[in-house]
Amino acid sequence: MAIKHALPVTREKDFAAWYQAVIAEADMAEESGVRGCMVIRPWGYGIWERIQKLMDARVKAAGVENCYFPLFIPLSFFEKEADHVDGFAKEMAVVTHHRLRSVEGKLVPDPDSRLEEPLVVRPTSETVIGQAMSRWIQSWRDLPMLTNQWANVVRWEMRTRMFLRTSEFLWQEGHTAHADRADAMEETLRALEMYRDFSETALAMPVVAGEKPENERFPGAVATYSIEAMMQDGKALQAGTSHYLGTGFAEAANIKYQDREGSQQLCHTTSWGVSTRMIGGVIMVHGDDDGLRCPPQIAPHQIVIVPMLRDNDEDEAVIAYCRDLQKGLLGQSAFGEPIRAHLDMKGTKASTKRWGWVKKGAPIVVEVGGRDVAGGNVSVLRRDRLYREDGKTDSAIVAREAFVADAAAMLVGIEAALYGQAKAALDARIERGIIDTAGLDTYFGADKPGWAEVPWAKPTGAALDKVVEWLKGRKLTLRNVPLDAAAATGACIFTGEPAVERVLVGRSY
Amino acid sequence: MAIKHALPVTREKDFAAWYQAVIAEADMAEESGVRGCMVIRPWGYGIWERIQKLMDARVKAAGVENCYFPLFIPLSFFEKEADHVDGFAKEMAVVTHHRLRSVEGKLVPDPDSRLEEPLVVRPTSETVIGQAMSRWIQSWRDLPMLTNQWANVVRWEMRTRMFLRTSEFLWQEGHTAHADRADAMEETLRALEMYRDFSETALAMPVVAGEKPENERFPGAVATYSIEAMMQDGKALQAGTSHYLGTGFAEAANIKYQDREGSQQLCHTTSWGVSTRMIGGVIMVHGDDDGLRCPPQIAPHQIVIVPMLRDNDEDEAVIAYCRDLQKGLLGQSAFGEPIRAHLDMKGTKASTKRWGWVKKGAPIVVEVGGRDVAGGNVSVLRRDRLYREDGKTDSAIVAREAFVADAAAMLVGIEAALYGQAKAALDARIERGIIDTAGLDTYFGADKPGWAEVPWAKPTGAALDKVVEWLKGRKLTLRNVPLDAAAATGACIFTGEPAVERVLVGRSY
Repeated sequence: MAIKHALPVTREKDFAAWYQAVIAEADMAEESGVRGCMVIRPWGYGIWERIQKLMDARVKAAGVENCYFPLFIPLSFFEKEADHVDGFAKEMAVVTHHRLRSVEGKLVPDPDSRLEEPLVVRPTSETVIGQAMSRWIQSWRDLPMLTNQWANVVRWEMRTRMFLRTSEFLWQEGHTAHADRADAMEETLRALEMYRDFSETALAMPVVAGEKPENERFPGAVATYSIEAMMQDGKALQAGTSHYLGTGFAEAANIKYQDREGSQQLCHTTSWGVSTRMIGGVIMVHGDDDGLRCPPQIAPHQIVIVPMLRDNDEDEAVIAYCRDLQKGLLGQSAFGEPIRAHLDMKGTKASTKRWGWVKKGAPIVVEVGGRDVAGGNVSVLRRDRLYREDGKTDSAIVAREAFVADAAAMLVGIEAALYGQAKAALDARIERGIIDTAGLDTYFGADKPGWAEVPWAKPTGAALDKVVEWLKGRKLTLRNVPLDAAAATGACIFTGEPAVERVLVGRSY
Repeated sequence: MAIKHALPVTREKDFAAWYQAVIAEADMAEESGVRGCMVIRPWGYGIWERIQKLMDARVKAAGVENCYFPLFIPLSFFEKEADHVDGFAKEMAVVTHHRLRSVEGKLVPDPDSRLEEPLVVRPTSETVIGQAMSRWIQSWRDLPMLTNQWANVVRWEMRTRMFLRTSEFLWQEGHTAHADRADAMEETLRALEMYRDFSETALAMPVVAGEKPENERFPGAVATYSIEAMMQDGKALQAGTSHYLGTGFAEAANIKYQDREGSQQLCHTTSWGVSTRMIGGVIMVHGDDDGLRCPPQIAPHQIVIVPMLRDNDEDEAVIAYCRDLQKGLLGQSAFGEPIRAHLDMKGTKASTKRWGWVKKGAPIVVEVGGRDVAGGNVSVLRRDRLYREDGKTDSAIVAREAFVADAAAMLVGIEAALYGQAKAALDARIERGIIDTAGLDTYFGADKPGWAEVPWAKPTGAALDKVVEWLKGRKLTLRNVPLDAAAATGACIFTGEPAVERVLVGRSY
C-alpha cells in the first residue's frame, strides 16, 4: 500500500523544499519579516532550551564559568587583529546613530545623534572578551581562565536558510586563556570532544571530528577543528567548531601574565561554539517524510497524551484516566531526568492532534479513548517506527501499567534507534577508495554521493588555493581531516605529492 | 570594639559609592569599555541564571510558551503605534549599514552597504511580536496566546549605573493576546502577582504592587502596574512591570480574531517584564558594609567550603574531609532543589578566600582545618549574622554530621531572616499620616525619609503634569497606587479634590 505521508513534499522529490516543510509543519520557526532573521516558535525554541540545558551542564562540568559580554563592539577593538577583521568586516551590522527623529511623519536616524565611533553588533566576541581577559589576568595563578557565554550574534548573510544560516542566530561561545600552547591545545580538543560526544549522545547525530584545512580556518585562528554531520542528502553540515588561536588575539588585546619566574608572557587563547544551526542538522539527519523525528533527549515533550473525546458522558473518565497516566509518567525517569509527558487538551480533533505531534516529532504519542479506559490500556505510537509493513500506522494497544513501567526504556530505545540509523547511513556513505581526481569526479557525478576521504599532502598557500578552486568548480569543499582517519599512504590525489594525512571532501551547507 | 568592615566605604558614608564597591568587590560586574554596557562576571551572571531558572518555571507553570524574536526591528514596524514611538525614539540604537570597509587603514561603514530601511535594536518587542501574533491568531480558539522571551534589549541611556540602568540589559518579556479586556486584565494582574511573589520569596525582597499613575505608563499602555522595592537609602526601585495594552498594539499590528459569532475582533494585549535590574535591587536591599548578602535561593553557591591548608602532611586529610562534606551537602535538598555546595580549591590563603566569599554574599561559609578534621567538626559562618556582639566574626564550631543534617534548615532560616529584616525596614519607612504638601516637604526634608503614602484624587492631563512638576522640583516621583492600600479618605494633598485612592511618593532610581 502506498503511504500517504504527512508532509506535502518528500525528501526524495525536493530535499530543500522538504526541509522548509518540516520547519513550517512542525511549527518550529518562520520568516520574521525582518531581513535574514527568523522567529523561533515554541517547539523550535523548546528544542534549543533542551540543547542549552544539556550543553551547559557539560560546559560547567569542565570548570568553565558563564559570563555576559556586550552586544556592541567598538570598531577600535575590532581593528586590532588583522585577519579577524578581514574575515568579518564584510558581514557586520553597524550601529551609527543612537536616536530617531520624526521628519515629515517618517522616523529617520537623527543626524545629531551620530556616534563618534560606530559600534558593530557582535559577530563573535573574541575581541571584547579579550579586552576583559587583559584586565582579569595578571599572573600564572589566574590561568587557565575559562569563560563562556550564551548569546545572540549577527552576521549579515546574503542568502539565508532557517536555522542553517540566518543573520541573527543564538549560540554559546567559549573563550579561554592559557599559559602555553600545550594547555590551550588540550582545551581546544577537549571542547571538540565535548561537542562530538554531545552530538552523538544528546542529538543522536553521528559526526566526524577533525581539523579544518588552512582555507577553512576561523579568521585569526592558528588551527580550527570541527564536527561534521552528514545530512540525508549526503551533504555535510559543520555543526560545531573549536579554535586554537595561538597568541594573536592575546597580542591584539594585551592578554599577558607573569610567569613563575616573574617575566611577562602572552597567553594562548581558544574559542569554541555551537549554535541554533544544530537544530537544522537534527532535522536533516532524523527527519522523514512525515516531519521531524526528535531525539528523546532534546524533545520538549517526550511523550504526548492525546485524549479521544466525543463530547459525551465518557469524556470525563477519559480525561481523568489521561491525567493519571501523565502523573505516572512524570514520576518516571529517563536519561537521568524526569520524563517530560504532555497532556494535549487543545480543542481540536484527536486525529489532527496525532498528526500534529507526528510532524513535530514527539518520540511517543499515546492515544486514549473510552475503550482503552475500559480495558486499562493505551494506544502507543512510536515516532521512530511509524508504519507497519502494510503501510498502516503502527499503533500498539498496551496495558497502561506496562507502558508506564517501560516508557523510559522505550525512550532510550528510540534515541538508540535514531543514532543507529544515522550512523549506518554515515558509514555507508563515506568512500575511502578513491585514488585520483577522475575517481572523485566519477563518485560525485554518480547518484547520491556522500563524502570521499582521500589521501592529502596538506598543501598550503597558492597550492591549496588551486585545489580549493578546482573543487569549487564541482561545488565541493574540503571538510576536515578526521582525527581517527587511518594513516595516509600513497599520493595526494590533488598534488601528486606524498600524502601526509587523509581529508574528507564533500558538498556542504 | 569597632568593626573593620570588608568594603572600603560604608552605606552610611556614601551609599552610591558603597553600591559600586559591592559590585566590584564581589566580582559581579564591571564597565566594559563599551559605552553604557557592562560585563557581567560569573558571580553576577550566576545570580541571573538562578533568577532565570526560578522565574522561567513560574512563567511556564502559567502556560506561557517561550519563543525567540528578532533583535532588529524595521522602522516601519515601529512607526505604527504613535505613543510607543514617542516613548522610545529618543533612546534607540540604529543600524544603518551592513558592511565595513577599510579606508586608509581605518574601518568605516561602507557607504555602498547603507540599508534602505534602518533597523532599530529592540528596546522592547511589542511591535515585532505583534506582527507574529497577527499571523498566528485567526480564531477565538487560538486565544489566549501566551508567549515569552528571554533576551537582550538596548535603550540608549545618557547616565548609566551597573545593573540599574545600562544601555544593554537582559530581561524576560511576556507578550499575550486575549479575546477581551477582562481576560487581558486578568493576565496583567497575574503577571504582577507572579513578580510580587517571586520577589518576596525567591529574592527575599518585599515589594509594593500597584498601578502606576498615567505619567509613568509604558508608552502605548492603557494601564501599567509595577512592583516597587525600597532600597536601604529609602529610595524606590521599580523592579518589574506589567502592562495592559488595550487594543492599540493590536490595531497597529492587525492582531484580529474571528469570534464565536463569526465576526472579526481586535485582540487585547499585555506585556510584562523583569530584568537584570533586579540584581541591583538585591544588592541595595540585602547588602551590608561587608558586601552582598545573597538570598540562598538565588545564590550560585549556597555553601562554600574553604579548606585551611598548611602545605604539610595534614593537607591531604583536610581535602578528603572537605570532599566528603561537600558530597554530604550535595545529597541534601533545600527549597526543593539539591543544595549547591562549592569546594574552593583555589591556590590562595584561606582567610582571603573567606573574606572573598563574605563579600560575594555566599549564605554559609564553612572552614575546615586539621583540628576540625580531628574533632569531626566544621567551622560555620552565616552571612546574615556575621559578627558577635563583641565585634568578632561569629564562627561556630559544629559537629560535621549535625551541620550536614541542619544545612537545609539553616538556608531556609537565612532566606527568612533576610526577608524579615527587609520587610521590617520597608514597613517602618512608609509614612501614611501626611495630609498636606507642607507635611510632605517636612517628611522628605528630614533625615532618612522613606516613602509617603498620601490621599490622591488621580488627576490627569495638565493637572497631573502640575503635580509631577512640583514633585520633580523636590526630586520626588509618584511610585504607584498600592493594590492593598486602605480606602482613601479626605482630600488629595496636591489638588485638594476628594481623594479616590492613595499613592506612594518617594525618591527613586
